[in-house]
Amino acid sequence: MLRVIAVDPGLTRCGIAVVDIAANRSAQLVDVTVVGSPGTESIGHRLSVIDRAMDEWLVKYQPDHLAVERMFAQHNTPTVMGTAQASGVAIAAAARKDIPTALLTPSEVKAAVTGSGSADKQQVTAMVTRILNLETPPKPADAADAIAVAIAHAWRGGLFGRGLDTGKLTSPARKSRFENKPANLTPAQKLWLAAEKRAK
Amino acid sequence: MLRVIAVDPGLTRCGIAVVDIAANRSAQLVDVTVVGSPGTESIGHRLSVIDRAMDEWLVKYQPDHLAVERMFAQHNTPTVMGTAQASGVAIAAAARKDIPTALLTPSEVKAAVTGSGSADKQQVTAMVTRILNLETPPKPADAADAIAVAIAHAWRGGLFGRGLDTGKLTSPARKSRFENKPANLTPAQKLWLAAEKRAK
Repeated sequence: MLRVIAVDPGLTRCGIAVVDIAANRSAQLVDVTVVGSPGTESIGHRLSVIDRAMDEWLVKYQPDHLAVERMFAQHNTPTVMGTAQASGVAIAAAARKDIPTALLTPSEVKAAVTGSGSADKQQVTAMVTRILNLETPPKPADAADAIAVAIAHAWRGGLFGRGLDTGKLTSPARKSRFENKPANLTPAQKLWLAAEKRAK
Repeated sequence: MLRVIAVDPGLTRCGIAVVDIAANRSAQLVDVTVVGSPGTESIGHRLSVIDRAMDEWLVKYQPDHLAVERMFAQHNTPTVMGTAQASGVAIAAAARKDIPTALLTPSEVKAAVTGSGSADKQQVTAMVTRILNLETPPKPADAADAIAVAIAHAWRGGLFGRGLDTGKLTSPARKSRFENKPANLTPAQKLWLAAEKRAK
């Protein structure tokens, strides 16, 4: 079993989810929350809200991996920079406890949980609700997003130790992860993929 | 006297400087370093290098304020996002110790130390060397930049407690800081500005 803490970073609303994923791909929601602070607060205060929440949950839930959405700076907005700062604080909090971080693109997350890299938020929320057997959809969207990131990481490679951001851009596993091509698989990974195919 | 720790954020090279600034504007370099790690390392490792360095220096030097260059996402590059993540980690490290953070734009820093918001790196390094009475210019540029940020913060308002990012965008002092207009000054601030004019 893999316990993943996932973060949908943001200063105003930061989704944090803890999900247990078994080897048969079944997933169970352990806890989910949205923390944050209004833009009228200082940047130090806003980042420390996320820092403290991460510290508390890392101690409380002892996750194996952190998964975070990979950020792209598409617009010259303070929001993008604040989101990047928030993700940095979450990653550093995990690193202090030797918990490795996986970075996933939004389309990787969508593809993993819905089958389509261009799925909308409603589809992602619907699939997350179904995968976790929840009676009601997780709200707000930031909570559902964080859960989706956790599931996507575990399903797409976390259970094999693939998909972690080792930083080694040239490793076949990592290249595969970011180019969506098959990696040089270990025998265990080949067995797993075969099992996945049969399950579909 | 005000002790400022300033950070020129980056994952590969992160400049950290501690400067003491007296009420007569004289500045003394306490310590300066450049920390970082190669892009082949994981993001968790890279951010924790900065996290640990900040923690160590915050304990060792007990600064009054942190000053950081305000980031703008001008290009869609991983470097910009990494730099933002690094700045977030530095700010959160200070916030954990209740040290407030001031954010300064690059042009505010240049204007404060050289008199021109469009000064180049060489001018900034030359002025920093002169202000601190150093025998040789601080190297690399990231070290000089961090020192310039510290001096700029103290000179431009840090000594009055102005210029801190309280997040309250509507406060006259903060608006003034970012619009370069006079604030509603306290009597002490008026005296200071008069002294500054006489000195020029």
